[in-house]
Amino acid sequence: MLEKINEPKDLKHLSIEEMQTLAEEMRAAIIKRVNTTGGHLGPNLGFIEPTIALHYVFNSPTDKFVFDVSHQCYPHKMLTGRKAAFTDPDKYHTFSGFTNPAESKHDTFFIGHTSTAPSLAVGLAKARDLKGEKYNVVAILGDGSLSGGEALEGLDNAAELDSNYILILNDNEMSIAPNYGGIYKNLALLRQTRGQAENNIFKAMGFEYMYLEQGNDIAALIDAFKKVKDSKHPVVLHIHTLKGKGCKPAEENKEFFHYMGPGALDNKPTEYAPSYISLTVDYLLKKQQTEPTLCVISPGTPGAYGLTPDVRAKLGKNYTDVGIAEEHAVAYASALARAGAKPVLNVLSSFIQRTYDQLSQDLALNNSPATLLIHYGAIGPDNVTHAGLYDIPLICNIPNMIYLAPTNAEEYIAMLEWSLKQTAHPVAIRVPFTEMRHAEKPVQTDYSDLNKYEAVRHGKQVAIIAAGNFFGLGEAVCAEMEKTLGISPTLINPRYLTGVDSDLLNELKKDHQIVLTLEDGVIDGGFGEKIARYFGPSNVKVLCYGADKVFADRVPLEELYARYHLTPQLITADVKKLLK
Amino acid sequence: MLEKINEPKDLKHLSIEEMQTLAEEMRAAIIKRVNTTGGHLGPNLGFIEPTIALHYVFNSPTDKFVFDVSHQCYPHKMLTGRKAAFTDPDKYHTFSGFTNPAESKHDTFFIGHTSTAPSLAVGLAKARDLKGEKYNVVAILGDGSLSGGEALEGLDNAAELDSNYILILNDNEMSIAPNYGGIYKNLALLRQTRGQAENNIFKAMGFEYMYLEQGNDIAALIDAFKKVKDSKHPVVLHIHTLKGKGCKPAEENKEFFHYMGPGALDNKPTEYAPSYISLTVDYLLKKQQTEPTLCVISPGTPGAYGLTPDVRAKLGKNYTDVGIAEEHAVAYASALARAGAKPVLNVLSSFIQRTYDQLSQDLALNNSPATLLIHYGAIGPDNVTHAGLYDIPLICNIPNMIYLAPTNAEEYIAMLEWSLKQTAHPVAIRVPFTEMRHAEKPVQTDYSDLNKYEAVRHGKQVAIIAAGNFFGLGEAVCAEMEKTLGISPTLINPRYLTGVDSDLLNELKKDHQIVLTLEDGVIDGGFGEKIARYFGPSNVKVLCYGADKVFADRVPLEELYARYHLTPQLITADVKKLLK
Repeated sequence: MLEKINEPKDLKHLSIEEMQTLAEEMRAAIIKRVNTTGGHLGPNLGFIEPTIALHYVFNSPTDKFVFDVSHQCYPHKMLTGRKAAFTDPDKYHTFSGFTNPAESKHDTFFIGHTSTAPSLAVGLAKARDLKGEKYNVVAILGDGSLSGGEALEGLDNAAELDSNYILILNDNEMSIAPNYGGIYKNLALLRQTRGQAENNIFKAMGFEYMYLEQGNDIAALIDAFKKVKDSKHPVVLHIHTLKGKGCKPAEENKEFFHYMGPGALDNKPTEYAPSYISLTVDYLLKKQQTEPTLCVISPGTPGAYGLTPDVRAKLGKNYTDVGIAEEHAVAYASALARAGAKPVLNVLSSFIQRTYDQLSQDLALNNSPATLLIHYGAIGPDNVTHAGLYDIPLICNIPNMIYLAPTNAEEYIAMLEWSLKQTAHPVAIRVPFTEMRHAEKPVQTDYSDLNKYEAVRHGKQVAIIAAGNFFGLGEAVCAEMEKTLGISPTLINPRYLTGVDSDLLNELKKDHQIVLTLEDGVIDGGFGEKIARYFGPSNVKVLCYGADKVFADRVPLEELYARYHLTPQLITADVKKLLK
Repeated sequence: MLEKINEPKDLKHLSIEEMQTLAEEMRAAIIKRVNTTGGHLGPNLGFIEPTIALHYVFNSPTDKFVFDVSHQCYPHKMLTGRKAAFTDPDKYHTFSGFTNPAESKHDTFFIGHTSTAPSLAVGLAKARDLKGEKYNVVAILGDGSLSGGEALEGLDNAAELDSNYILILNDNEMSIAPNYGGIYKNLALLRQTRGQAENNIFKAMGFEYMYLEQGNDIAALIDAFKKVKDSKHPVVLHIHTLKGKGCKPAEENKEFFHYMGPGALDNKPTEYAPSYISLTVDYLLKKQQTEPTLCVISPGTPGAYGLTPDVRAKLGKNYTDVGIAEEHAVAYASALARAGAKPVLNVLSSFIQRTYDQLSQDLALNNSPATLLIHYGAIGPDNVTHAGLYDIPLICNIPNMIYLAPTNAEEYIAMLEWSLKQTAHPVAIRVPFTEMRHAEKPVQTDYSDLNKYEAVRHGKQVAIIAAGNFFGLGEAVCAEMEKTLGISPTLINPRYLTGVDSDLLNELKKDHQIVLTLEDGVIDGGFGEKIARYFGPSNVKVLCYGADKVFADRVPLEELYARYHLTPQLITADVKKLLK
């Protein structure tokens, strides 16, 4: 079946039975592909039948689909000319795992962060109405994404539309982890009552509401989609689907198989670089023994921080998964800290982006001594939506915030310990995202004398300020310069990304002509520019290294490093040129 | 009565009648004070009786009040030791207009942005529970703030608490402007049915829910607050209040008197610096004639942009007030632009902070050609919560974004016109926040050759790159340097805050030793640091001017300018020192 489907119109003449066969072929291909490359398994397996029915009933790309977070877009890709990425191992890496307008006219937006589809779809609907056009706008939203503020803002606005707007609520009873929040009590009740519960959050907002229990039954889905198609007002169609459908392990362990590494279905151990993560978890579990007000927080993505179900069970009341609600997570942490508790918020670099105002107003302005652990902050070959590049400029330009960049395990734990002890500042720590490194001598335990850098090695002419993940690169640059230029550089671990050590920098002016800054993130607005500004009125020359301000999509790390001169050889060559 | 009240306990023995007298005295004082100094009139007048009843029933500061946005905190201040700020004209300016923990132990947080209280209160409640303490946590939320994503995230989480959490929903049927969104249909129905509507958004989320129609009746309020006090689970008490109560003009024109300038009750015309605002409005109304897909957007604060009720009526379907929902506003604008419409989002510098991720993921990554007008971006004597300092670092470090800084009326309109014409980029324009200036010669109409600065005046030795609002300062610095140093500097209008003009900067290297950057915002992460970095490896010295990364609270502008060396004399003196 799949062989014959090259675009959505090829579906239109199929019988229900043929579509069921198609679904099974798609399922087999997805399982095989994800078990080879890794990827989002559960959400895609649960959304095969709905996708077939969507393309059968609606006419993409005239009708517009907006897939929230797009963790469920593989079936859509398979039906819109991109099946080779799932059937041909040579092409497994040809296409992105997310919707991508550069790939296909059937993808309306680049999407990888949650809770945006209801809002984006309102804009499409309004543009259609202003232009006097006629088509269906269909937002597809997972239940887990519903707790995000942007989704709720979007729904609130959608309800005011006086025209076609269709929200398919794909309720598989799970976020990445189990759902948390009052909204989910309502969804559970709606499932139990087959949509007949007295209080209905969608009806309360003014939506027409329909419920379909058989969310993986193609015939039932087609009927339901036909009912909402061409609706002249906003409608929510709540469908109950099975996450991981058709793959027993994924049905049974929905959290683990939401996103999986290669070979996970064959019990291959996941190849995270887990060292700093397990170090964190071990620390927190130990801390819990002596700190009854510890509150470990995850905004809906606990697995990324090693907060597996058993760790969560151990943490008990000392753990909150706020659901996908990063803004709340920061405000919550701030209030906990102000009231004397010890919050530790875990968040991915890419997702801390959702909280600038909360970092500034709720947290920093109130100087609440909360601890934030920023994970996966690094230049990487990520999908463009998940780059860990921007957390440094985001955090380091907010007054009162302290942003620390540890360079090894002992320093990291010392900083975390200090952060939990002190009560003067909000402290963010950029969790190292490198191979595990260890300190060569005892590390400092008190970081309250702010912005004091550590000169690890004293040299002349050239000083290298190597932050966090790039401290190892700094060491390698030193070695390379000694070897090829005969220069013995000074090497500095700045530790603080939020300020400059003017004493140390002034000292450098005496016998250093060139200062290099190395940071594992975008240069613009980041740490290095603070150093460049500091030396602006002096004779010291500054070269800042990091990533360019460009959206890079799945570019191999080596290529990025070559592009940005992030190797000892390229940096040394730059310095050699400057010394001439 | 008011004379005798110095702290909340002084209320506790008053009779209802005495409290009513107190309310009237407080009302008179607030009206007089706000008509003298300007301030938030309507929301405070509507919340006098509830505040008296709150302090009568609960025991602040043991019980914690969190006033959302704190536009309604004047009565609270009057009852907690700060009445002089409302009764003694000499002390009118002693206290902030917002809750401020530095002023009083009765203020739990610095708050000035909306929609944070439900979320902050969850953190307080959780900390209390972890510490084994007992007190009431009371969040006070206006109906207008309910549409903000952070509020909804907070409510969703609050509903999971298994302990005391009280949300007072202060429903005065208004945001700053009329409410917009499906949630408000539900609130209207709840008011109509006295809380008995079939679908109830709060009950749907799992809250206990109570309704009080007489939201300005002290006795009824006391009864209602007693019912929710010491609740062992999350409860929403929905009270219906009258915005502007007791001041006829404020009752009749709720939007105009939400926040008013001095003398507005005596029909004194408001002393905005309205020039660029009316210029914008005139432009948009004219544009509407030829551009049927124009969509002017305001996130709940239309008055700040001159989008008065009559302008909104003229704009008709070409206008959307999304309510307090900045995240949605950006995503909505992005989708409108992608679908070929012409969105123009108006937003205050301080509130664009609520949208970093939407700017990055929804807008910039999708390269949607939406236009954003950033208003009130400037160093100012504002309350600390409303500083217009951070929009430059926020926006200018996001890939694909174009951030323009016009220096006069003609340039501003030309940039706006270009932005609406082009389809290649998302464009933000920092609306000038100065006295009206005019171009001395025809301005450029096409800005698609990105990052091309304009050398307005060619000189030697010193070059001044003076962005946006500070272009006039740049001119004054030139004059001062000619006069006192005999130097004729080069003066550059950079126009683009998002990139450097390497051709022009390289040209400067030939006969300039010092480059100054002037920007009307925080220096950290902003425009000037990009110039400092660019010249980092060269012999050119760079001095960056702007604001320090510090939360400044109501500091007079002259003092800030002196502190940051933002005068021609101070800058010239710095240069003189450097030239030695």
